[in-house]
Amino acid sequence: MFRVDINCDLGESFGRYRLGEQKEILKYVTSANIACGFHAGDPSVMRETVKLAIENGVKIGAHPGLPDLSGFGRREMKITPQEGYDMVVYQIGALNGFLTTFGEQMQHVKPHGALYNMAAKDAKLAEAIAQAVYDISPSLVLFGLANSELTTAGEKIGLRTAHEVFADRTYQSDGSLTSRQQSDALITDTDKSVAQVVKMVIEGKVISQQNTEVLINADTICIHGDSEHAVSFAKYIKETFDSNGILISAINN
Amino acid sequence: MFRVDINCDLGESFGRYRLGEQKEILKYVTSANIACGFHAGDPSVMRETVKLAIENGVKIGAHPGLPDLSGFGRREMKITPQEGYDMVVYQIGALNGFLTTFGEQMQHVKPHGALYNMAAKDAKLAEAIAQAVYDISPSLVLFGLANSELTTAGEKIGLRTAHEVFADRTYQSDGSLTSRQQSDALITDTDKSVAQVVKMVIEGKVISQQNTEVLINADTICIHGDSEHAVSFAKYIKETFDSNGILISAINN
Amino acid sequence: MFRVDINCDLGESFGRYRLGEQKEILKYVTSANIACGFHAGDPSVMRETVKLAIENGVKIGAHPGLPDLSGFGRREMKITPQEGYDMVVYQIGALNGFLTTFGEQMQHVKPHGALYNMAAKDAKLAEAIAQAVYDISPSLVLFGLANSELTTAGEKIGLRTAHEVFADRTYQSDGSLTSRQQSDALITDTDKSVAQVVKMVIEGKVISQQNTEVLINADTICIHGDSEHAVSFAKYIKETFDSNGILISAINN
Amino acid sequence: MFRVDINCDLGESFGRYRLGEQKEILKYVTSANIACGFHAGDPSVMRETVKLAIENGVKIGAHPGLPDLSGFGRREMKITPQEGYDMVVYQIGALNGFLTTFGEQMQHVKPHGALYNMAAKDAKLAEAIAQAVYDISPSLVLFGLANSELTTAGEKIGLRTAHEVFADRTYQSDGSLTSRQQSDALITDTDKSVAQVVKMVIEGKVISQQNTEVLINADTICIHGDSEHAVSFAKYIKETFDSNGILISAINN
Repeated sequence: MFRVDINCDLGESFGRYRLGEQKEILKYVTSANIACGFHAGDPSVMRETVKLAIENGVKIGAHPGLPDLSGFGRREMKITPQEGYDMVVYQIGALNGFLTTFGEQMQHVKPHGALYNMAAKDAKLAEAIAQAVYDISPSLVLFGLANSELTTAGEKIGLRTAHEVFADRTYQSDGSLTSRQQSDALITDTDKSVAQVVKMVIEGKVISQQNTEVLINADTICIHGDSEHAVSFAKYIKETFDSNGILISAINN
Repeated sequence: MFRVDINCDLGESFGRYRLGEQKEILKYVTSANIACGFHAGDPSVMRETVKLAIENGVKIGAHPGLPDLSGFGRREMKITPQEGYDMVVYQIGALNGFLTTFGEQMQHVKPHGALYNMAAKDAKLAEAIAQAVYDISPSLVLFGLANSELTTAGEKIGLRTAHEVFADRTYQSDGSLTSRQQSDALITDTDKSVAQVVKMVIEGKVISQQNTEVLINADTICIHGDSEHAVSFAKYIKETFDSNGILISAINN
Repeated sequence: MFRVDINCDLGESFGRYRLGEQKEILKYVTSANIACGFHAGDPSVMRETVKLAIENGVKIGAHPGLPDLSGFGRREMKITPQEGYDMVVYQIGALNGFLTTFGEQMQHVKPHGALYNMAAKDAKLAEAIAQAVYDISPSLVLFGLANSELTTAGEKIGLRTAHEVFADRTYQSDGSLTSRQQSDALITDTDKSVAQVVKMVIEGKVISQQNTEVLINADTICIHGDSEHAVSFAKYIKETFDSNGILISAINN
Repeated sequence: MFRVDINCDLGESFGRYRLGEQKEILKYVTSANIACGFHAGDPSVMRETVKLAIENGVKIGAHPGLPDLSGFGRREMKITPQEGYDMVVYQIGALNGFLTTFGEQMQHVKPHGALYNMAAKDAKLAEAIAQAVYDISPSLVLFGLANSELTTAGEKIGLRTAHEVFADRTYQSDGSLTSRQQSDALITDTDKSVAQVVKMVIEGKVISQQNTEVLINADTICIHGDSEHAVSFAKYIKETFDSNGILISAINN
């Protein structure tokens, strides 16, 4: 039987600002990546989100980002690998504080935004992040872009990794995501989008924009919780997976 | 035999800004309170300070503060007890991240600046902080102003507490510190200052500004690491304690 | 003929976070208080909001707050009058930068949240803020709670002031607002709320919670732009004022 | 007669953190670049520094940086030109607030750190910054790396520019600075360093690391105020310039 994890970024509110329909989306995902206060999230939002995830039986991961609240962690910053290591340790630790108060274990770590993208391409930064995760606990799962420097670094150091694929993004023939600068980066048609992930999960392949078949690991699928249609899309994915015999299950289950 | 802990605030540098003579002062203290990124400290400073403390055999505690970097956590803010709980959990967790990477256990938690002062007087806030510490781990020691709401709250919840006294501050007849607004708040004479702590440790008493003898618990003495004379003062205390048969030893030893 | 200004807090989005229905509400107000980056707002939000206000012919004021983004500037902080002076100068200057690029003059300054409330009661802080406004330009109008320390300080230094009243808040017999801690602080009935402001504008009086008639200056009315019903409420106020012969007009017109 | 401006970055303290020997260095420079709160500086530091500069008869410029206090504005961030425009307008405006309270005019704008370096190479960002400066006031002088995209953009839009050279940095045959990643980036020998600037001012030339003579505009020389030897180096430059008949004078004198 095929199985796959569905993950979603959560806890990205801050102070008075609200983002995302957390309560609804939690019904459809198996892993929650919770922001840790650098690109989004604050201590109170983190506590509330951890509580919500636990109540919904969703596994929890840290979602560390760059220290850039006004840019939502989406602007690349030239940090050193050591700085990357330090900010990941800090943020995992901070979220772990809340998990501890609930007697809960952290399942995984998934870097956010620019940190995720930089770590997908920069081997040194990827190794620093993998090391940070490993040093916190070798039993944590490292989520990264499928077939990227980050998953490679995680595997090299001995971490379990989850290769992440995207339903709504197109791929290049080398297995990388089409840059958001290009007009064909996004799949806006829901059926196409779902068909792509089904193929990735069942066949381990994706059709690139160059019309070639590319091998891809699909351990976990990212659902965006902050878009308008997030909940209806999540529902639709779940139904399609059910009818295709794909089991939706957290990585650590 | 009399014994007492000597603690010092450390890791209060930030980015390019340096504060305190950490390496020297660590030779004379038994407990280090390490800033956690809210009032001071950043992830890299935290890692370096944790490493230094371990190398010097000094026990480590979290030193959580208010989210006020420009005010160094010294300006009171009207936070709710829940906000206090959340920011303390966050900051303990963050520092714990670094301790974990070094395989080290945290000994204690000591709130910083305005958070410390507010928790000394505000029972609700004190209870929230004690709860946060307890929820992270019941084996943590809570450092607070001697005979204050914070130590009371810690004891009520079942935490081990350390009553803190100050060498360089004068006391009122009710056991509280003389407000810094008053001209006689500080003891500038080193001999007087050391004599006061020796009396507090050996006799459990302090002479107030009203010339009365006040009972005081003196489990730990705070040394300021950021003053010019911090190191020479620390040396002098150590020598005086040695010659008075007072053992300087961390709370958890 | 009676005339009154209607003001609204705007530009309180930050980075990816959106707050308020700016475009709609701007049709119904005559003065916009634009956040300056401390409690809310960022440089891009400020530029966009200044542009929108100009396009709608709405007069612009600075809306400086405490440096507390996670608390939205609503938590009191014990700042010194000098710190208050400095942060107000900084924020007025920053907003003025954007006004200058559009060739526009600033009309007024209205402190935000806790800074507004603190300045209403604390004469020293009120004087520091009034001085800051005056030092930037004696022709700026200072908006403050009607009959408060802030309007008093403004008048003493020679600034034109605008006494602000609230449609949705109840008043005490001494002319102060009923504390939000009390259950009867807010007027939720729209008709009552509008009737109260009409009375304040036409008669210069308000009925207190103690059922006494209190004299009150009503130069400007605050409309909240971030509530759900802000736009419909603004419309309703405008219609009622029109039919009562009250001219809605900016302070400086 | 030859003349040149000497500029120095100032006001880079923050909250409790102190940086640089401002009072001493102000005796030897003619233009002060004052940090505006993004990479360093806070409102109180800005007011104090503006006051000090005025007391010393030193011309004042804004020193806007990236919003990265923990990285001191030295880490490149992928901002858009529009974001660059907005953050420069904001920071110039904020500093201008303090100048206004002292009845003083701003002379110039010099971007800081990574923003300075990015603008030296990225024409789009350079144009956005030049536009921001121009939109605030066409009479402001734009300071940028000699012969860079920033000075080019400033001249294109009609701003007066000041080409900046460095005493303690080596140059490449294309006129660019040797990257700090290279071991020969810095000139540590004081005599060499001073000889280089004298040649740049008098002959308009510099000897590159490739041993070629490169034409260079030297309108202003940057002195670092935060190094240990800043003051003695500044004194030495002044004496050498005096004896070589080079007049030290602010750009706008």
